[in-house]
Amino acid sequence: MTLTGTLLIGQQSVAGIREAIRAIDPATNQMLEPAYPGGTFEQVEQACALAWTAFDSFRETSLEARASFLECIATQIEALGDALIDRAVLESGLPRARLLGERGRTCGQLRTFARTVRAGEWLDVRVDNAQPERQPLPRADLRQRQVPLGPVAVFGASNFPLAFSVAGGDTASALAAGCPVVVKAHSAHPGTSELVGHAVARAVKQCNLPEGVFSLLYGSGREVGIALVCDERIKAVGFTGSRSGGIALCQAAQARSEPIPVYAEMSSINPVFLFPAALEARGEALAQGFVASLNQGAGQFCTNPGLVIARQGADLDRFIASAAQHIWQSPAQTMLTPGIFSAYRSGVEALGNNPNADIAAAGKADDGPNQCQTHLFVTRAQDFLGDPSLQAEVFGSASLVVTCADDAEIRQVAEHLEGQLTATLHLDDADLDDARALLPVLERKAGRLLVNGWPTGVEVCDAMVHGGPFPATSDPRGTSVGTAAIQRFLRPVCYQDFPDSLLPVALQHGNPLHLRRLLDGQREA
Amino acid sequence: MTLTGTLLIGQQSVAGIREAIRAIDPATNQMLEPAYPGGTFEQVEQACALAWTAFDSFRETSLEARASFLECIATQIEALGDALIDRAVLESGLPRARLLGERGRTCGQLRTFARTVRAGEWLDVRVDNAQPERQPLPRADLRQRQVPLGPVAVFGASNFPLAFSVAGGDTASALAAGCPVVVKAHSAHPGTSELVGHAVARAVKQCNLPEGVFSLLYGSGREVGIALVCDERIKAVGFTGSRSGGIALCQAAQARSEPIPVYAEMSSINPVFLFPAALEARGEALAQGFVASLNQGAGQFCTNPGLVIARQGADLDRFIASAAQHIWQSPAQTMLTPGIFSAYRSGVEALGNNPNADIAAAGKADDGPNQCQTHLFVTRAQDFLGDPSLQAEVFGSASLVVTCADDAEIRQVAEHLEGQLTATLHLDDADLDDARALLPVLERKAGRLLVNGWPTGVEVCDAMVHGGPFPATSDPRGTSVGTAAIQRFLRPVCYQDFPDSLLPVALQHGNPLHLRRLLDGQREA
Repeated sequence: MTLTGTLLIGQQSVAGIREAIRAIDPATNQMLEPAYPGGTFEQVEQACALAWTAFDSFRETSLEARASFLECIATQIEALGDALIDRAVLESGLPRARLLGERGRTCGQLRTFARTVRAGEWLDVRVDNAQPERQPLPRADLRQRQVPLGPVAVFGASNFPLAFSVAGGDTASALAAGCPVVVKAHSAHPGTSELVGHAVARAVKQCNLPEGVFSLLYGSGREVGIALVCDERIKAVGFTGSRSGGIALCQAAQARSEPIPVYAEMSSINPVFLFPAALEARGEALAQGFVASLNQGAGQFCTNPGLVIARQGADLDRFIASAAQHIWQSPAQTMLTPGIFSAYRSGVEALGNNPNADIAAAGKADDGPNQCQTHLFVTRAQDFLGDPSLQAEVFGSASLVVTCADDAEIRQVAEHLEGQLTATLHLDDADLDDARALLPVLERKAGRLLVNGWPTGVEVCDAMVHGGPFPATSDPRGTSVGTAAIQRFLRPVCYQDFPDSLLPVALQHGNPLHLRRLLDGQREA
Repeated sequence: MTLTGTLLIGQQSVAGIREAIRAIDPATNQMLEPAYPGGTFEQVEQACALAWTAFDSFRETSLEARASFLECIATQIEALGDALIDRAVLESGLPRARLLGERGRTCGQLRTFARTVRAGEWLDVRVDNAQPERQPLPRADLRQRQVPLGPVAVFGASNFPLAFSVAGGDTASALAAGCPVVVKAHSAHPGTSELVGHAVARAVKQCNLPEGVFSLLYGSGREVGIALVCDERIKAVGFTGSRSGGIALCQAAQARSEPIPVYAEMSSINPVFLFPAALEARGEALAQGFVASLNQGAGQFCTNPGLVIARQGADLDRFIASAAQHIWQSPAQTMLTPGIFSAYRSGVEALGNNPNADIAAAGKADDGPNQCQTHLFVTRAQDFLGDPSLQAEVFGSASLVVTCADDAEIRQVAEHLEGQLTATLHLDDADLDDARALLPVLERKAGRLLVNGWPTGVEVCDAMVHGGPFPATSDPRGTSVGTAAIQRFLRPVCYQDFPDSLLPVALQHGNPLHLRRLLDGQREA
């Protein structure tokens, strides 16, 4: 398929006319063809109008039809073959193997949501049968199911051009819930977005769904993005990106005459706690694992370990020295965009110039444009507690070790943390009591807690939580990875005394979908 | 128990020092003793600090301990005996029988949440076992449960001094979730609030829970209320009241450095659709049922039928004439407060002066202060569509019939409606196709849909939804009545590769709570 540089409004390829977006190969700083002229306000409106028109029928597709649609998207993405991977490598600077893995994850995620849709548990069907003889008043027949919120605006993320982008987790979970999706492509990978967008559109057509189920727009966040969030037909927003970007979307969504939920995943430094016995027993192995996690994808992961917290002493010194050795050996890696590279360099410079932080190690110097040089800094707990700038996310392979005088300071640092996607504990048996004492704090701070692992690597499964208290996300009640992500796009509706012929099939008396309902207070077997 | 006019900060009765609140007997306009001096900013802080201190231990109480606590609150409320009912009658002007029923509902609600807590389904436990042999990468052991958000601010409502107030649905569901609660009492019934507040505090003590689990404050919404919502230790808000009040709380919550969810139930006119065959077959019975629902509690229900929509013609004329006859016989009823009465009178006057609305009937004139005289108005669809003021809630026994030329106009009116708590359909078999065509619109508009019933009367059960799209509530994803209300105060946390001894009991490998977990993608039997 030849890239055309056009928007996709339903099944129509339409040229934008506003300032063009152009991808840049971050490995060479070369501009890539074609140009993607930005969409207009009217084009945003058209996409939303189509989505709105599609909503009432799409949301009542059968579980099987919706699941097949998700599987069909996966097949269509796979059918793009090497062209997709080639373009994604060019636009992102990410290694080919990583993008092959990410494609597998993206298609696996779509198929996982297909299974979730078929199982139907997300409908959360609750039935309270009528009690006509009840005193003093009879009880009506009451039945509840979940229905989709409405058309959803999804903002592609820069750092996963497939798995958190056009057909990524937000899109997959919104479609699974029965919500049409209007994607604003990330400006860093418009070609990858166009390819995937056409794969989704082909699946829409192949499944005989209304075309408004999916549209793809390009343009600036300020113009196209805010217009999309403010369109009254959009009923929820999914976003992965910067804190400032996420907060701007939240404010726009709240300022609407009908405010809507925004699921923005924004900022996390993913604290790692090294407990004394573990640090003593295997400080060097920990250092090796830490640097490997820090360097993964040039540190451009939301779950990158940006903070290490431990008690000061010889064991921690050894850990730092060992980590430094690994960092000195770390080759520089191309970052996703010149903008991300420039922000990384500024962040590292700010830490370097901060009198409260000392540099412990830097990786190999860059030998090309936009290359991330790994950095490790060290600070003391009291300095960390007194300097909010030390808690700001530096997106890339940079981390900060906080040395604490004692357990009380460790707890103080933990309490001082903002909300996080993850918190990690490295511990041995002798550390269990210390860890147990810290757990209540960490449960309040993070969406996922890990023992003796590293936070990079987010499994797509039922139990995953990729979310957390503000500012990790704008809404701690959801996850953007894993099957529970579907719940973000649903709301409950209760049907009282409906005749069977008017009830949605999930609620009919004969339970034709064979759901395990909550029936008169008991879960069906 | 003698009323003291003091705040309850944990187990301590403490005098406020700001401007005093005084209840007024709306039947006589007499001020009631004692005065309730308002709380200070420091007292709000103290209550929040106690709640925060209590949170980590309260949230890890066993299911049994938490359930027993809820049951103990119910027992303590019942033990208040006639004193509670006497005071509630004085402060609200509501009939004694209604308040006896409301007490039963309030205590039944607490016991229902106790059953829900014990059943443990709200924990939504998901387990994905480790797959150490998986290629290309092993899978970690991942376990998810729901944890409480943190201390919750609850605002008592005026219209249910027991069931939506100090120990009402918001408090019961927040406590059930494991969240300490700080209540701001509604200024209309401070004495009732004090009595119930002490009952809750006695249950806290009797169950050996930390005192910060519950506090009760008085004061102005602007001062105490906003300070409470802005306190960084408060993590969610429950509110039932006016649209302006709810929006002010939402804005305050969004302006925090850490925004928090607000569950505000605000405004609904609860459209009732009368379909042709039903209207022809039983217009008079419908009129009788309608007026009975309209008059219930002087119309001071969130689910009061404030809008009737039907096709114009002789059958609708008969319905209106019959409703008018019932309304002419309707005695005036004391409203909850002079403020509510004054707002009702203004609302009815505005409708009376609106050239787009004609008065169809008025109930018997008042013979005492603050008495609500039932009103029915009629307008045409095109006037309704062109005049947003006709969609404003008039809190009290006032309703508006919208006459439509045809089905297209009925649909237009339905599409034009703001979000609602309920939508009602009166239909006979011959109306089923018409009703089916309208359902998708109504599902988008309301949280509960009823057939051949009346929206007043909200059952406390698993399947109930008392919620809906904005402005019915600030968050359509929740319900404030029924057991699903607990979900508003929870967030998911994932535990990765935790040793059994560190896992919360709900997630331990042996499943000691005997929960039906989602285990490797399958629901346990």
